[in-house]
Amino acid sequence: VLPTEIIRAKRDGRPLAPEQIQALVDGFTRGLIPDYQMAAFCMAVFFRGLTEEETGALTEAMLRSGDVLDLSDIPGVKVDKHSTGGVGDKVSLALAPIAAACGVVVPMISGRGLGHTGGTLDKLESIPGFQIGLGEGRFREVLAATGACLIGQTERLAPADRRLYALRDVTATVESIPLIASSIMSKKLAEGIDGLVLDVKVGSGAFMKRAEDAERLARVLCDIGRGMGKRVVALLTGMDQPLGAAVGNALEVKEAVELLRGRGPIDLLEVTLELAAEMVLLAGRAESLEDARCMAGETIDDGRAFSKLCQIVAAQGGEPEALVDYALLPQARGTFEVRARAEGFVQAIDAEAIGLAAVALGAGRVRVEDAVDHGVGLVVHRKVGDRVEAGEPLCTLHWGARGAEHPDAVAERVQRAYQIGEHALPAEPLFLGRIG
Amino acid sequence: VLPTEIIRAKRDGRPLAPEQIQALVDGFTRGLIPDYQMAAFCMAVFFRGLTEEETGALTEAMLRSGDVLDLSDIPGVKVDKHSTGGVGDKVSLALAPIAAACGVVVPMISGRGLGHTGGTLDKLESIPGFQIGLGEGRFREVLAATGACLIGQTERLAPADRRLYALRDVTATVESIPLIASSIMSKKLAEGIDGLVLDVKVGSGAFMKRAEDAERLARVLCDIGRGMGKRVVALLTGMDQPLGAAVGNALEVKEAVELLRGRGPIDLLEVTLELAAEMVLLAGRAESLEDARCMAGETIDDGRAFSKLCQIVAAQGGEPEALVDYALLPQARGTFEVRARAEGFVQAIDAEAIGLAAVALGAGRVRVEDAVDHGVGLVVHRKVGDRVEAGEPLCTLHWGARGAEHPDAVAERVQRAYQIGEHALPAEPLFLGRIG
Repeated sequence: VLPTEIIRAKRDGRPLAPEQIQALVDGFTRGLIPDYQMAAFCMAVFFRGLTEEETGALTEAMLRSGDVLDLSDIPGVKVDKHSTGGVGDKVSLALAPIAAACGVVVPMISGRGLGHTGGTLDKLESIPGFQIGLGEGRFREVLAATGACLIGQTERLAPADRRLYALRDVTATVESIPLIASSIMSKKLAEGIDGLVLDVKVGSGAFMKRAEDAERLARVLCDIGRGMGKRVVALLTGMDQPLGAAVGNALEVKEAVELLRGRGPIDLLEVTLELAAEMVLLAGRAESLEDARCMAGETIDDGRAFSKLCQIVAAQGGEPEALVDYALLPQARGTFEVRARAEGFVQAIDAEAIGLAAVALGAGRVRVEDAVDHGVGLVVHRKVGDRVEAGEPLCTLHWGARGAEHPDAVAERVQRAYQIGEHALPAEPLFLGRIG
Repeated sequence: VLPTEIIRAKRDGRPLAPEQIQALVDGFTRGLIPDYQMAAFCMAVFFRGLTEEETGALTEAMLRSGDVLDLSDIPGVKVDKHSTGGVGDKVSLALAPIAAACGVVVPMISGRGLGHTGGTLDKLESIPGFQIGLGEGRFREVLAATGACLIGQTERLAPADRRLYALRDVTATVESIPLIASSIMSKKLAEGIDGLVLDVKVGSGAFMKRAEDAERLARVLCDIGRGMGKRVVALLTGMDQPLGAAVGNALEVKEAVELLRGRGPIDLLEVTLELAAEMVLLAGRAESLEDARCMAGETIDDGRAFSKLCQIVAAQGGEPEALVDYALLPQARGTFEVRARAEGFVQAIDAEAIGLAAVALGAGRVRVEDAVDHGVGLVVHRKVGDRVEAGEPLCTLHWGARGAEHPDAVAERVQRAYQIGEHALPAEPLFLGRIG
């Protein structure tokens, strides 16, 4: 079948056979189908969508374009978590040890930050010595020994997805729910997991600004996973303001560790425990979500989750001492207080603007090839619903990265991100839905 | 402005500034904007369309991507004709000399056949010695001396259109009215014409199968032309069965010459004279369409049009003797009669199937790089509304091209193209509308 015919069929809204999608992805991966045909196909998909069967076929074709891990020789149920990305979302750092401490096996393959959202890999790399590029053999060893291993995507997992994503990025075809869903799931299902918990973020700092879009994405993600015989559950969680207080790599590691030591911000704690409970339930380690929540909470209270994180960090070459003595983590050159100009209540914080302020400080990337400074970032002191007096600190900037924006300019970004008014407005809910 | 932003704006239905379209076409022509971005843009245009302003900007950008002829030093009003392509459409061969004999200056730049439709250049090349690749200097000389010159598109006219068309062809983005219209008009307006008569074909053998699509295309074409200060008129003409009787290059030359000698098929004559009258009127050589029709008809009756064709052929290196002694034209190796299997009335002839039967005989191209045999083709003897007895010839195949389909198989194609029934059905009208 000619690729032009496949593009035309999709363009005209005719359904594609799984074999056609398979041929398209195979041809693209092997360089037989040029980028321009795939770009036209993606734009046709943007307008026409994909059926559930087509989405499944696309996911499977991308999944099978590279290695698919087989972790069946490691005892236990393997469950990973995937977040669609947010600002201050350091959940994975705390979640993996909590779930592992509850007996879930957590093979976690994460990404880097891009644009206003951060990435787990960058956060992990702010722990001195931590290796995110383990080979498959060492990955299995760490997973079997500690119950969790956190690494980066390898070249050999779902290479078709990597190529396709790069093409979509430069052809304005990223924002398509079936393409987003098949991209996520092809990578996750290549990890050899039995189950997956999805954290689909909704709000000003999320990729999906509207709950209905997030819900559609969550349903497609769950459909794909179930179509491949995996247990999948998705939570829709709020991203209308940063999660927790810290935004920036070492700052977020510190906040995640504080959480494991019982001193975490309440919103971060709630999201982390809820996702952990879902993982525990999926892995069959608890009878009910209620029980699973208790189990997860106990691993914090009795210190097992923190010990587990230290164990994982050590197994991956990192220095667990840095989780106790934060001075061993990368530090910013200086701090700068952003103070409220008027009294009132914080009515909204534009999470995307806060994320971009952190990027402007050097904590994130505008382009894939940019370097990050692990020590810089910001910590917000007032969240939605909080009262603030004029002159009180809203946020502390941790600055000093080479080539970064001047702290004064970043402070101005933060000021604009805060909406302060006379009346107290309630914060948006943290949990917006559960699909599974 | 980033190309991704331009693609996204079109994708989301936001209007583009002329400068954005100019930048896109310039970047594409200079190789700075890759094919994959242009392919995504074209697919977004397929779904979102282009505004009149955007279509004009695209046409102008492609027009200015190469040379624009200036024929102002040649006296007279320059008017060309463009047909959207059909089966048996040999109108240009008779039209150019008729219009020139009426005092219109006709700088005609034509294309080659592709798929089921033929091309004027292939027909011209079946005249021994005829040169379609004249340089600009000789083109001007012939035009000034004879009043008409028929050549092929050069590399230097609208190169952006040529590149874009090739890309659209392999990305299923051909069927977009603004893209079709800007492609046609960018080439035609680069010819240095003052006016243009468009023959927009409608029906089973045309690119536009439905009258409403043809009318939309005609309106967009006229809008573009008028936006650039040109006189443009469009006729919608029927292409539900082949025009005239002959389909195939030398066979069509012979039929066009017969027309100029007063022995042409009536449908071909009517379309040719109507288009000629529009050209004469646009050029200001007649007061009314009525007068223009008479003038055009007289050039056939008194032999001036035939003499003019001989003059043009001679000026372009061809042998005018072949227009008198048809044995000097390329001949087929053999003929084969396709006979009616049952008596009745011809109720329909699938023009596209007849065109593809001619291609199967070697008269046309499936791919751009295919060679054609100028001698082969077919001649239909019965048209819609005609009575036929069982065993009477429907069509004569002229066969013998190397690598062509067996005449028996082609005969079967012709049989299937003919619908013969008990009742006489009227033929579709030849003239479906006029816009201008």
